[in-house]
Amino acid sequence: MIGGGPDSFIGAVHRNAAWLDGKFDLVAGAFSSSAEKSQQAGAQLGLDPNRVYDSYDELFEKEQKLPKNQRVEAVAIVTPNHVHADPAMKALENGMHVIIDKPLSFDLDEAKQLKKKVDETGLIFALTHSYTGYPMIKEARHQIAGGKFGGLRKIFVEYPQGWLSHSLEKEGNKQASWRTDPSRSGAGGAVGDIGTHAANLAEYVSGLKIERVCADLNTVVEGRNLDDDASALLRFEKGASGVLIATQVAAGEENDLKLRVFGEMGGLEWSHKDPNTLLIKMLDEPVHIYRTGTDYVADITKKNTRLPAGHPEGYLEAFANIYLAFGDAVQDYNRGALKEIKSYDFPTVEDGVRGMAFIKTMVESSNSNTKWTKFLL
Amino acid sequence: MIGGGPDSFIGAVHRNAAWLDGKFDLVAGAFSSSAEKSQQAGAQLGLDPNRVYDSYDELFEKEQKLPKNQRVEAVAIVTPNHVHADPAMKALENGMHVIIDKPLSFDLDEAKQLKKKVDETGLIFALTHSYTGYPMIKEARHQIAGGKFGGLRKIFVEYPQGWLSHSLEKEGNKQASWRTDPSRSGAGGAVGDIGTHAANLAEYVSGLKIERVCADLNTVVEGRNLDDDASALLRFEKGASGVLIATQVAAGEENDLKLRVFGEMGGLEWSHKDPNTLLIKMLDEPVHIYRTGTDYVADITKKNTRLPAGHPEGYLEAFANIYLAFGDAVQDYNRGALKEIKSYDFPTVEDGVRGMAFIKTMVESSNSNTKWTKFLL
Amino acid sequence: MIGGGPDSFIGAVHRNAAWLDGKFDLVAGAFSSSAEKSQQAGAQLGLDPNRVYDSYDELFEKEQKLPKNQRVEAVAIVTPNHVHADPAMKALENGMHVIIDKPLSFDLDEAKQLKKKVDETGLIFALTHSYTGYPMIKEARHQIAGGKFGGLRKIFVEYPQGWLSHSLEKEGNKQASWRTDPSRSGAGGAVGDIGTHAANLAEYVSGLKIERVCADLNTVVEGRNLDDDASALLRFEKGASGVLIATQVAAGEENDLKLRVFGEMGGLEWSHKDPNTLLIKMLDEPVHIYRTGTDYVADITKKNTRLPAGHPEGYLEAFANIYLAFGDAVQDYNRGALKEIKSYDFPTVEDGVRGMAFIKTMVESSNSNTKWTKFLL
Amino acid sequence: MIGGGPDSFIGAVHRNAAWLDGKFDLVAGAFSSSAEKSQQAGAQLGLDPNRVYDSYDELFEKEQKLPKNQRVEAVAIVTPNHVHADPAMKALENGMHVIIDKPLSFDLDEAKQLKKKVDETGLIFALTHSYTGYPMIKEARHQIAGGKFGGLRKIFVEYPQGWLSHSLEKEGNKQASWRTDPSRSGAGGAVGDIGTHAANLAEYVSGLKIERVCADLNTVVEGRNLDDDASALLRFEKGASGVLIATQVAAGEENDLKLRVFGEMGGLEWSHKDPNTLLIKMLDEPVHIYRTGTDYVADITKKNTRLPAGHPEGYLEAFANIYLAFGDAVQDYNRGALKEIKSYDFPTVEDGVRGMAFIKTMVESSNSNTKWTKFLL
Repeated sequence: MIGGGPDSFIGAVHRNAAWLDGKFDLVAGAFSSSAEKSQQAGAQLGLDPNRVYDSYDELFEKEQKLPKNQRVEAVAIVTPNHVHADPAMKALENGMHVIIDKPLSFDLDEAKQLKKKVDETGLIFALTHSYTGYPMIKEARHQIAGGKFGGLRKIFVEYPQGWLSHSLEKEGNKQASWRTDPSRSGAGGAVGDIGTHAANLAEYVSGLKIERVCADLNTVVEGRNLDDDASALLRFEKGASGVLIATQVAAGEENDLKLRVFGEMGGLEWSHKDPNTLLIKMLDEPVHIYRTGTDYVADITKKNTRLPAGHPEGYLEAFANIYLAFGDAVQDYNRGALKEIKSYDFPTVEDGVRGMAFIKTMVESSNSNTKWTKFLL
Repeated sequence: MIGGGPDSFIGAVHRNAAWLDGKFDLVAGAFSSSAEKSQQAGAQLGLDPNRVYDSYDELFEKEQKLPKNQRVEAVAIVTPNHVHADPAMKALENGMHVIIDKPLSFDLDEAKQLKKKVDETGLIFALTHSYTGYPMIKEARHQIAGGKFGGLRKIFVEYPQGWLSHSLEKEGNKQASWRTDPSRSGAGGAVGDIGTHAANLAEYVSGLKIERVCADLNTVVEGRNLDDDASALLRFEKGASGVLIATQVAAGEENDLKLRVFGEMGGLEWSHKDPNTLLIKMLDEPVHIYRTGTDYVADITKKNTRLPAGHPEGYLEAFANIYLAFGDAVQDYNRGALKEIKSYDFPTVEDGVRGMAFIKTMVESSNSNTKWTKFLL
Repeated sequence: MIGGGPDSFIGAVHRNAAWLDGKFDLVAGAFSSSAEKSQQAGAQLGLDPNRVYDSYDELFEKEQKLPKNQRVEAVAIVTPNHVHADPAMKALENGMHVIIDKPLSFDLDEAKQLKKKVDETGLIFALTHSYTGYPMIKEARHQIAGGKFGGLRKIFVEYPQGWLSHSLEKEGNKQASWRTDPSRSGAGGAVGDIGTHAANLAEYVSGLKIERVCADLNTVVEGRNLDDDASALLRFEKGASGVLIATQVAAGEENDLKLRVFGEMGGLEWSHKDPNTLLIKMLDEPVHIYRTGTDYVADITKKNTRLPAGHPEGYLEAFANIYLAFGDAVQDYNRGALKEIKSYDFPTVEDGVRGMAFIKTMVESSNSNTKWTKFLL
Repeated sequence: MIGGGPDSFIGAVHRNAAWLDGKFDLVAGAFSSSAEKSQQAGAQLGLDPNRVYDSYDELFEKEQKLPKNQRVEAVAIVTPNHVHADPAMKALENGMHVIIDKPLSFDLDEAKQLKKKVDETGLIFALTHSYTGYPMIKEARHQIAGGKFGGLRKIFVEYPQGWLSHSLEKEGNKQASWRTDPSRSGAGGAVGDIGTHAANLAEYVSGLKIERVCADLNTVVEGRNLDDDASALLRFEKGASGVLIATQVAAGEENDLKLRVFGEMGGLEWSHKDPNTLLIKMLDEPVHIYRTGTDYVADITKKNTRLPAGHPEGYLEAFANIYLAFGDAVQDYNRGALKEIKSYDFPTVEDGVRGMAFIKTMVESSNSNTKWTKFLL
């Protein structure tokens, strides 16, 4: 693991997700840009001190010298955005598979270079768009792909948070600090941190790509250096349109990602507040409440579920589903039986490139007086 | 009553609302542009046949000849939009108070003329933006006005319906027929029918006026002659921004108006699905579920509530609240004690003018390649 | 109207319910045991002072002298329980139809005498078990009667309130005062006031009669003279069993009547908090959310609905549905075309007798050390 | 691990829960009474074949011969109820700590013997009453213990499931097979399987012991050999009373454990459907929605939460909290610093004894004609 030291939120999430199913062992790490903090984290995690490194450069160097069967096989990168591309490139160059937090990189250029390197090396590269790991998101995607709703017309996705309603970044909050700092976060604030999740989810579930956006990015909290609020009108392929909201100043909201998709014959609704439920709304029928753990859901949904109906699964399980899919691909790679990468159903470097393009497009649109801006891939 | 014949939806609503509190009697009507249907409706309603008229012109003419204490005192106009302004003008000219369905008129010009006439005559003129009659909408407005949330930042209002997902207007549905016909409905389809409700509610509750919009109106169902889907980015006074969604092609949705407002210190959420509830979300506090019929709500909320907590009130009660407020004004007018019209807290001709301007602005914005369009009052 | 003066809750409800559909006029009343308060109420209601009476005896005497076509046709009795039977008997003796609040009477004997009188006179007699007027209660009953769930197995009904968590009766609260006073309320406190609603609803929807109960009645608040809390195990006809909860000391609860019925193949759930929704739960299927105002519900459901889907109706509308059904029967009676009384689908004197028997059975069971007590009809 | 082979539901749950936080390694197992199935499970789990045993007797024998620092330290017992006591006794005799699924044993006698052995050995013994691991259950218990609601009055706990609505046990379902078989499950069916969870949760949260019950156990599905449905009136210490429902024939229900507790000044509600939420209902206040991951909850709640607000945690996380607490105790034991066992806040052998006594009491009460049966400890 690279990153994920004492103040990290997402590092612990990656570890829990990797451990949950007993398929991954954490054997080495460079947990912080501070050597001391890295050692401290490694000790807390009970790692062999010889494999707790002062920097990721040291990690790559020393692991490379280990015999192949002892060496780190895959690297989880959970650093702030500006420290994504470099360790990811080096991991690939050292023959390690990579699972990395979103957004993929600091900017679109880095993202494209990473994609090139992934293509060259043929290694497994996963991006943790965690929400796509939820079983009912799989069900939603499955039902839409099966044509249940006819041609899609409207896609509404929203991701309201309230935690940045104040200048937390000036009150010593590490998470707020780097996420609102353009030198570490990149060109997007809210639009990068949560807007990319929302856009990715909308595209993943609908199967439609965003083609044009009309964005309104705001820096609501005075003195902040990045947008903390984003709204956009969207145009998708095949005539669908929609709205995206991603805001971190909806004071009192938690983390309430919500997706609604409507087609000619009905629609669906999924909310992160109640992630084991998918509402299916067909014209002139009662709304149907689909639930995880039931017999009537799709195979792909079942595959991403651990428990019978009525036993809630949550964020860590969704996250772990991405780890499981990544792990399957790594195993297949190792035994020389890698299938088409899309078939493993985890977010890839391509999703990462689209995410970085989305940030760029949204920022450009927001700065423009013209209504529509083409997706800048 | 003018309009409200056999195929009318809103005519029956107005009658129930007027009757509910025992304060209004229905004594006369011109219920349809068809004399026969008007008589039929009058008979069903048990009216004196002498006061069931073939046309509203006849109504005004004949009622005017009755002694003042027998004559119709106030007229409810519940016709399609293109038959709003004419009977409303004539009612005012005949000294009758008017309560009229929204949107106010066919276009902004008519609306302005009506406003002029109302100002001239000093008669009472109410517009049934029904949702503003809900007790928890009063509570929301009250709490915001009291400064509970600090300066407002974000306003999200949405009004998804699914009933126009097909070409109902070609299947003999009267409601769909006039509402999708520009010669009867005016320049706006969804934006006029439900978008005006959404905009009015957002302004009423927040106390902030919309200053600019960036709209995307769509005619989703092929062959339809008016928009059936509208989305817009909004800029309000005092730096607040927001999003408005009003769509009639969200297949499977009912009539799910929802408003969320966020300020510096918290926010609120109201949904038409559960109208007796108002969620109050303060930063770092549990969400508080405010409910109608309780002791802790504001006086204005109590005034608009009939039942103790736990006894649901609905759409007709909200509608009736507008009738009650209108009735109070009429009574005060009659005894020469009319107070400032705003103090009665019902939607007025001014709201109607803003509604028509909103439609015009949205249509113009949607046709423009420029991002922002100023509110065209 | 008899009762329904200044401090009455249910009097206003009856009036709103009667007025809502424009089918009833309030023309006379004896609104209080205090002549002064009766006059005051009549004046507020705008009645002809000649028909506001000092007592219900006076009402019957004077109305009887009016010409038949001017005379009160039906009487609404909304007094405390101990003043139910006497005015009801006198109304029937004077040839007036009766609509009366529940529970029917002070005790079972009175109830049986009333039933005898109703049978003798053939007049229309309705009991306002208001919750049975909800459209989704009609739908629930319809679906069960149609055999959708197979043989019924479990019936859970609960009615938690919190308003009597303190000794409100000692703080000048009129409602609390008579409802906790055995000399005015009868043998049952919570069990009479809300337990009868719960039992009636369970029987009405399931179509099954309670045969045995095992009750635990408690007087939770010190110094109170009647039960304020009741729970019971139930045995129904045809092998079904269940649980009933009716408590007025569930501090923080409003008025949350809830019914769940389960059969061999599925079950249903209805909650007063969201009365326009009925959850249908079939084995191995998604839960189906049935909603009022839709096309797919039963005719009887549609008949009890005024508005299209997504327009909430509430308690007054449900109450008004009982008035409408009662009015239909009165009209048919008047034109000599009365059908079988059950066909009008309003609660009758028989329901009232069962309600009084229920109270008696519950009290006796609670006082007994034997587990099961037969229903004492 | 003992048990948890191919057809086990709870075995996988224990493994996920143990793994989630990276604190436990699975090193050995006797996964089935069939040696072949045990080996198969061990292979699937990637265990060293030398430590996959044909029986738990072999496990104890062979592990005992390993050097202490390699030997199994704690045993998870996840077999059907009739194979609980024997391996648990042997584990304790072999100096191993035990974590065991509920109910504790086949009958009360076994339970008492186990308790005796635990007391003698001083080893750590945890019982996985999983629902007590939820953070909002901790919060509920904390708020009640702090006196927020005053003296407790009413406790309603219900646990409706629908999965045994048919004779699944005759259709080859392994779970249904042993759970409805008195020779494997013990004297209780639904009352043992889920009733014990409900009773334990009610006692844990309220801090009050059940003193008397009046139970109605039913075998609803024809031909079944154990109760599949249980209801009971409850009397708790200190004057509180309540109702318990535990049924497996509520067709269409999932696993909807729900607890409501009411005191003099308010109450709380927790539902397994939405486990990260706790409703706090104080008299004359808005209902407060407490949520996991927030700053305002108690320290014990925070300790049992992994993620910030808005990131749902579920059943596995709650289960893992019990493993974490058990692991803390084991660690303290190992370093000779064991604190008072209650302080670790996991369900102990005492809870297990109470659970078995609860089953016995419920069965006896159901067979009795006397209303109340004392808790048979």
